[in-house]
Amino acid sequence: RPERTLHEVLFFPSKVACVEHIFTPASTYPCLCSLPHGVETSFSRFLRHLLSATSSLDLCVFAFSHMALSRAVLTLHSRGVAVRVIADKDYAAITGSQIGVLRKAGICVRCDVGSVCMHHKFAVVDGRLLITGSLNWTLTAVQSNMENILVTEEPELVQPFIKEFHRLWEFNDPA
Amino acid sequence: RPERTLHEVLFFPSKVACVEHIFTPASTYPCLCSLPHGVETSFSRFLRHLLSATSSLDLCVFAFSHMALSRAVLTLHSRGVAVRVIADKDYAAITGSQIGVLRKAGICVRCDVGSVCMHHKFAVVDGRLLITGSLNWTLTAVQSNMENILVTEEPELVQPFIKEFHRLWEFNDPA
Ligand SMILES: [Zn+2]
Ligand SMILES: [Zn+2]
Repeated sequence: RPERTLHEVLFFPSKVACVEHIFTPASTYPCLCSLPHGVETSFSRFLRHLLSATSSLDLCVFAFSHMALSRAVLTLHSRGVAVRVIADKDYAAITGSQIGVLRKAGICVRCDVGSVCMHHKFAVVDGRLLITGSLNWTLTAVQSNMENILVTEEPELVQPFIKEFHRLWEFNDPA
Repeated sequence: RPERTLHEVLFFPSKVACVEHIFTPASTYPCLCSLPHGVETSFSRFLRHLLSATSSLDLCVFAFSHMALSRAVLTLHSRGVAVRVIADKDYAAITGSQIGVLRKAGICVRCDVGSVCMHHKFAVVDGRLLITGSLNWTLTAVQSNMENILVTEEPELVQPFIKEFHRLWEFNDPA
């Protein structure tokens, strides 16, 4: 079969719908929550791409308070996916930030040590798939703002982000 | 010659250097300002892509206060490039915002009419080249923050942004 490079653009605000089936696809029990079910949304597409990780997730995100996104990262960690997170020092300390939750679960988190604002919002899945855009990982961004996320496997776009993640990871080594 | 799809990723903060030669490439006078000259930076790359527009520039950006970026947009307008700008209503009213300057120069600007925060930071050049990322069009973002800009001609990435721009442009029609 011919190789096709995956490209996808998602726009927000996303419709609000239940994403339980994305976390528990094998469940035979119908979800009883009050949200719409069986609806594919920008947010559910985003979650699916994130949860497609099988070996590694490198995450560099300014604001991270969204509970379902936190659950996704914790799920990957529990599956043995190597998760690394670079977070903004100031935002990480804010109420509702999920950075402390990730740390307590044993995920490697590094906060930027300088006075520079770390304004990235990107993730690299399995060293292969780039997820990047304007969207912070917050409920407001997902449900209320006009935002975009670009998803691509194009190596010329993915590789520079891998290199920059590596550079920031080493630069912010607390040791 | 084989067609190659342009892809480029720029990271910030950018080194600070003079960009006068990008605006006046034909000048035979050396610039006398105190900034370093002859240095290619993330910001100069960004400017070059923006100024490559020959027919249209569609711009959808939350915060726009950077003077050299404003000059670039005004330059394109004066060259006869069809410039359309969608801006965030609240940010457009802030001191230092360049949105009023663009308007006074006769550029079509529409502010989002709803209560939704317009958090995009993207530009489409000639319906061909997408410039998008985390970077707001401010001096702080360019010179102080860790930010990214992704530049691509990949139609599968460019087309959705063109479509979304069109949708937001129509949606925010003041008429
Ligand atoms: Zn449900
Ligand atoms: Zn100069």
